[in-house]
Amino acid sequence: MPDAAPDAAPDAPARAVAEAAATAAPLRLGIAGLGTVGIGLVKIVQAHADLMALRTGRRIEISAVSARSRARNRSADISAYRWEDDPVALARRADVDVFVELVGGEDGPAKAAVEAALEAGKDVVTANKALLAHHGQALAELAEARGAVLRFEAAVAGGIPVIKALTEALAGNAVRRVVGVMNGTCNYILTRMESAGLPYETVFSEAEQLGYLEADPTLDVGGIDAGHKLALLAACAFGTRVDFASVELQGIERVTIDDIRHAADMGFRIKLVGIAQMTGRGLEQRMAPCLVPVDSPLAQLPGATNMVMLEGDAAGRIVLRGAGAGEGPTASAVMSDVLDIARGTRLPTFGQPAASLQAAPPARAAAPTPWYLRMTLIDKPGALAKVAAALGEAGVSIDRMRQYDHPDSFAPVLIVTHSTTQDSIEHAIDRFALTGVLVGEPVALSIASV
Amino acid sequence: MPDAAPDAAPDAPARAVAEAAATAAPLRLGIAGLGTVGIGLVKIVQAHADLMALRTGRRIEISAVSARSRARNRSADISAYRWEDDPVALARRADVDVFVELVGGEDGPAKAAVEAALEAGKDVVTANKALLAHHGQALAELAEARGAVLRFEAAVAGGIPVIKALTEALAGNAVRRVVGVMNGTCNYILTRMESAGLPYETVFSEAEQLGYLEADPTLDVGGIDAGHKLALLAACAFGTRVDFASVELQGIERVTIDDIRHAADMGFRIKLVGIAQMTGRGLEQRMAPCLVPVDSPLAQLPGATNMVMLEGDAAGRIVLRGAGAGEGPTASAVMSDVLDIARGTRLPTFGQPAASLQAAPPARAAAPTPWYLRMTLIDKPGALAKVAAALGEAGVSIDRMRQYDHPDSFAPVLIVTHSTTQDSIEHAIDRFALTGVLVGEPVALSIASV
Repeated sequence: MPDAAPDAAPDAPARAVAEAAATAAPLRLGIAGLGTVGIGLVKIVQAHADLMALRTGRRIEISAVSARSRARNRSADISAYRWEDDPVALARRADVDVFVELVGGEDGPAKAAVEAALEAGKDVVTANKALLAHHGQALAELAEARGAVLRFEAAVAGGIPVIKALTEALAGNAVRRVVGVMNGTCNYILTRMESAGLPYETVFSEAEQLGYLEADPTLDVGGIDAGHKLALLAACAFGTRVDFASVELQGIERVTIDDIRHAADMGFRIKLVGIAQMTGRGLEQRMAPCLVPVDSPLAQLPGATNMVMLEGDAAGRIVLRGAGAGEGPTASAVMSDVLDIARGTRLPTFGQPAASLQAAPPARAAAPTPWYLRMTLIDKPGALAKVAAALGEAGVSIDRMRQYDHPDSFAPVLIVTHSTTQDSIEHAIDRFALTGVLVGEPVALSIASV
Repeated sequence: MPDAAPDAAPDAPARAVAEAAATAAPLRLGIAGLGTVGIGLVKIVQAHADLMALRTGRRIEISAVSARSRARNRSADISAYRWEDDPVALARRADVDVFVELVGGEDGPAKAAVEAALEAGKDVVTANKALLAHHGQALAELAEARGAVLRFEAAVAGGIPVIKALTEALAGNAVRRVVGVMNGTCNYILTRMESAGLPYETVFSEAEQLGYLEADPTLDVGGIDAGHKLALLAACAFGTRVDFASVELQGIERVTIDDIRHAADMGFRIKLVGIAQMTGRGLEQRMAPCLVPVDSPLAQLPGATNMVMLEGDAAGRIVLRGAGAGEGPTASAVMSDVLDIARGTRLPTFGQPAASLQAAPPARAAAPTPWYLRMTLIDKPGALAKVAAALGEAGVSIDRMRQYDHPDSFAPVLIVTHSTTQDSIEHAIDRFALTGVLVGEPVALSIASV
């Protein structure tokens, strides 16, 4: 019974169903990791035991838990659950049916415990994108060999059911393209820079103090975390082996408040956008800051909100939006996988048997787009002409070019190109180096029409 | 293999999986109704046979079909399938595992055929919102009694996986509220009135000529079709029995181009919005044209696009957007249910056993909102004062009031109230009738903050 209806006592038929669920074998969880998401999961199990029993026909119970510190003060009471210091021991417990891995990290205890659970034939639910981005193929094969399921809805876009949408709702579609804004921290930083007019470094420090950043902030601002998610989506979308190593990655560290202002002047916002698509040349996967039109749905995403667009040949474009992180949303996604298991739904990890996932050759993004280039030139006659010449030699034509007022001997220059390929832009940047008039590396951002 | 990758031949492991699928028992469909959606489904089966076998481990085949006219020219070749004139006979065929009902209509052959299939223990997938809005409880009970599943993703919001999101992704949540724009025809009419500045009657005729309207257009413009969908969503969201009879329904027939212009002047758009929520007083279900802020996601929905927001206590607000109708999107949703069945996923119709669905008392919307009122007064001294007095007597306070220039003896008056309840607005309208100064019925639209 939803807690939104506290006054409605269950009637006789609902009680009968609840009683039937009470006699069915419960589904017993072992939860490794009691951080934000783990505690969120404990709260759902405690708050919605009857509701979930009605919906699945089984009681969802927690047998045992594990975390780094037993003594830590937590916002949920875990005293009723058995304790394991070692997540691997937890994964092997006889009273655990589903091992829930919320430890994190691409190797170490998370991997060891997931492997131990699968080896023992136990189902696994994880929110660990790094683990699956690096070892997804091997773990999916292990799960299938042992007759276990391994699911990871919570690893991508928090509470948004994007894995379910791809692998189930769109199972009758050839998926053409997946586009997403999937790192709430980057989106927070970019949104806040624009709204408060603050430089990157200041907002980065704010985000750090607010606890928004991973222990290794490069995972967030370097686009790695979002790249992990994109690689998982691509595998589900195109039936390919997870290939994180081939994701073209560019972080947001070099986006300045000036870039954001220039983009706004031209009617764009800067977002960290991931695009994956299968082409005749191979699989394109790119996660990079892009300029998107200010009136596009992607541009209007505030703070930590995530959005994913899925394009199927029959369904057309489906857009899903919601909280990309946080205790409740991520725990809700973990629980969605657990409840599928409770109901007897057993799907392969990436939506089709692991052995049938194809090793697609990586392909560079070939569709031409306009590009935004920002660079600093040594302020001497002919510098700008040399840059323009380099662009021309690379076959890139200029739409707009501006040199800004500058107090010192370095001249900031902004160029918007006509539509061209990433290869041409990179050729041009290579040629810039030969001109001897640039200070530092130029910033190059594609202008996406999504 | 997705057709987006025509160059990539399946490698050996993929071939092995495909061969295994070829030896598994195929899932055999009987499709009743070969209109837009039925033909879309035939096309998916024909285009993606290998892809779907990879994803489910079984071949999806069509055994037999049925429609009103066998001779009609169709955009897909159906000559390989057996023909039945009678959908009930189709539903009973021994070579049909899943009966797909795309006939439509709340009674008649659709209902008879679905009942026949369920009686025979066959699984049923339908896109028929009217059938389920009226007979959902009885059909769900019949399905469960016979060990069959009855699923209806395509009945609500076309290609958007909103039933799956509610019954599966949010299964660990108490759902607080469901909000949706779910009738593409109404949204097309309202959008087109605003963008072209055309009166309702003109755009209605356009929509009729474009084939956007149901045979009985009241189903669309009267809000009935959208009301059916809201009643189905409410059942899934709150674990209640489908109660279409209690949906408060208001169509768009009385929305004028003046209303749209006045709303735009104030920063709003008019959309046909459905809201369902469970409260301590009972179940609120309301489908009515509302003013929504022009910068809200709902206001920005173009033409036939649908959007649904689901609010869960853990997941927060999840927004889903996509094509609400059409051959591909609706067929994709039908196929999603079929493929769930092929994979062995077997859920109760409304996400929990039919016997456990509660009969919730209907409740009127109690949350106060501002209201937009438009009426026509007889142009004589004191008329406006009488209307203002009636509002005051009903406890409704006025935020803004405007009387427009008018060439004749009838004065159009526009009022925006401060936040007040629907009951108070209706009291006020009852009192208006006693003033003797109104011409016709006033138009009252709530101003939603969604």
